[in-house]
Amino acid sequence: MKKIAASIAISALAAAGAEAQQYQRPRVAPPEVNQVAPGLGHFTDDVLFGEVWLREELAPRDRSLITVAALVSTGKTAQIGGHVRRALDNGVKPGEIGELITQLAFYSGWPNAISAVTEVKKVFDERGIGPMAEGGGVPPIDLEAAAETARMSIIERSVTPTAPALAELTNRVLFGDLWRRAELSPRDRSLATMAALIATGQPEQLPFHLNRAMDNGLTRREAAEVATHLGFYAGWPRAMSAVPVLERVFAGREA
Amino acid sequence: MKKIAASIAISALAAAGAEAQQYQRPRVAPPEVNQVAPGLGHFTDDVLFGEVWLREELAPRDRSLITVAALVSTGKTAQIGGHVRRALDNGVKPGEIGELITQLAFYSGWPNAISAVTEVKKVFDERGIGPMAEGGGVPPIDLEAAAETARMSIIERSVTPTAPALAELTNRVLFGDLWRRAELSPRDRSLATMAALIATGQPEQLPFHLNRAMDNGLTRREAAEVATHLGFYAGWPRAMSAVPVLERVFAGREA
Amino acid sequence: MKKIAASIAISALAAAGAEAQQYQRPRVAPPEVNQVAPGLGHFTDDVLFGEVWLREELAPRDRSLITVAALVSTGKTAQIGGHVRRALDNGVKPGEIGELITQLAFYSGWPNAISAVTEVKKVFDERGIGPMAEGGGVPPIDLEAAAETARMSIIERSVTPTAPALAELTNRVLFGDLWRRAELSPRDRSLATMAALIATGQPEQLPFHLNRAMDNGLTRREAAEVATHLGFYAGWPRAMSAVPVLERVFAGREA
Repeated sequence: MKKIAASIAISALAAAGAEAQQYQRPRVAPPEVNQVAPGLGHFTDDVLFGEVWLREELAPRDRSLITVAALVSTGKTAQIGGHVRRALDNGVKPGEIGELITQLAFYSGWPNAISAVTEVKKVFDERGIGPMAEGGGVPPIDLEAAAETARMSIIERSVTPTAPALAELTNRVLFGDLWRRAELSPRDRSLATMAALIATGQPEQLPFHLNRAMDNGLTRREAAEVATHLGFYAGWPRAMSAVPVLERVFAGREA
Repeated sequence: MKKIAASIAISALAAAGAEAQQYQRPRVAPPEVNQVAPGLGHFTDDVLFGEVWLREELAPRDRSLITVAALVSTGKTAQIGGHVRRALDNGVKPGEIGELITQLAFYSGWPNAISAVTEVKKVFDERGIGPMAEGGGVPPIDLEAAAETARMSIIERSVTPTAPALAELTNRVLFGDLWRRAELSPRDRSLATMAALIATGQPEQLPFHLNRAMDNGLTRREAAEVATHLGFYAGWPRAMSAVPVLERVFAGREA
Repeated sequence: MKKIAASIAISALAAAGAEAQQYQRPRVAPPEVNQVAPGLGHFTDDVLFGEVWLREELAPRDRSLITVAALVSTGKTAQIGGHVRRALDNGVKPGEIGELITQLAFYSGWPNAISAVTEVKKVFDERGIGPMAEGGGVPPIDLEAAAETARMSIIERSVTPTAPALAELTNRVLFGDLWRRAELSPRDRSLATMAALIATGQPEQLPFHLNRAMDNGLTRREAAEVATHLGFYAGWPRAMSAVPVLERVFAGREA
């Protein structure tokens, strides 16, 4: 009875014209957020979910990919489950989530990846998603030969003389194996890597990976929106520090 | 009986002149710290709580604000509860803690803020602190017009051409809404922001926010003490990397 | 019955010559890693534990020291227990683990150290390792006088004018007490500090501490392997950003 009464009341309010809009405002912030930090509730509902997630400059699937990448690479395990559910709803496939974690093991360290697995396993179990198959006969992607030659000559010059094993692993394992795995598209892999670099405050590697992402299909408008979105998930300063790097890469591609 | 005997023994020792001082030494380190890492117990009791927290260069309330800001912005959830209790004891109001978390959502990312809410909620429940009221008719603060014009022209020049949405959100949401909220004084808001930038290793944004903090009333002596205090809560390297930034900002304000 | 059959089958396979090698491949990745992110399982078993941990450029005890240092300094509590067990197996003494945590309180902040204590305590209890004794009459190490004079004159010039308390604490507490504690050898202390600086992305302090580590006996080959190993525990970008610093320090020591 109470439920029926409540739903009538809501319908009445929802029908009330002028007030109707406020009932479309998403209510994503959990009650405890509004109780402890009502300002945070306001910005969560009105700006982050009421505006940013709806912006068309980046597809919801891309927003989910970079959000999960930011959470994994900064070790925010408490939020991983919720955003993996959202990512699945936004069209990211379970195998892509596993592969994104694999990519981030290399780009933000094993501990973050292993802890992410624990969180994702709970969501997969909850949704009845079975074990992922390794490889399954999918042949590795061929990387573009000219780009690989250029990349290797940088490593040869700047890493090999000082840290030869790191250089060799970079060539053989990262680019000879990880980046060639077909379980995640090159564009998505770049997107996750770029998000991890911005979120963890590593601008040094960003020019290389932003260029690679754009070679893999990311547009300038999307790249700027990645930084904007990550302002919310890794803090404004990380986003702001990414801007001059984006500016230089954009200018370099015009020249 | 044992208790009485023990307390007589302690009184006797405490009365023993020369030994008296060592019984005033705070015992903050939990037993497990002394069992696993006795050196850490020594530095915790003798230096961090026996000396640093007592230094008069920064008020206990300010130390609590920057400690909680450092913990929230670096995601150290395990220590948030204890330091929020201390902050309340040092005069930080519950509503100010909620608003500090709101500020840090923007300056260190939503996940840190949401996880902090969970920890703070437990302390509020424990102390019978009810839900905070949103707004409650408090009018927003007016920011100083000349400073705002200068700030906006920097954004216009350095962010808008590359990431227009990030620039627009910075102007409308961060400075048009967040920084104008009266729930936290401008000085406290600056202090929390500055602490987050030092603790998360973001020196790029520190000159702007240190200048703003000093415009909002922070003295040079207090600013140096913020860095010193944060050496303990975010590590010596973060404090040391802040020093040249402080030096440049101090010099710039003299010129 | 099934178990017996299975074990016969395995023996048969293990005896099968050509296949024998694959049974020597370590199986370190837990089942959930293979289920959620099979690629991560592959890299964990075949590269990280099947190759990197076995490389002779750095002793297993050193690898354990820097791994635990990376985990503590980046706050990866979920992995600390497992790697502390491995460190004990690799010859790190319980007292050295406690002292490493004490060192990292200063180099990555108190919260990381306190949270590490909680994890280490569980391992110590599990292995029946009793409370560590503080000091126990071990006299402090004397630091090399010329190096100390040089270090203090840098602090005097670059820190004292801006942050006098930070300078004074650096001289009296860090170098006058912490670095002189005999519970950890100077080389191990340097190794842990260097690992923390690389893992937390603090290249500014790395030249000083890498030089100190090399003065304390770390070879060039070991230093490069530290960066390589940390690529896996703190992410490739942190390792890559350390390379130019290593290069400059190596060059500076030749001149």
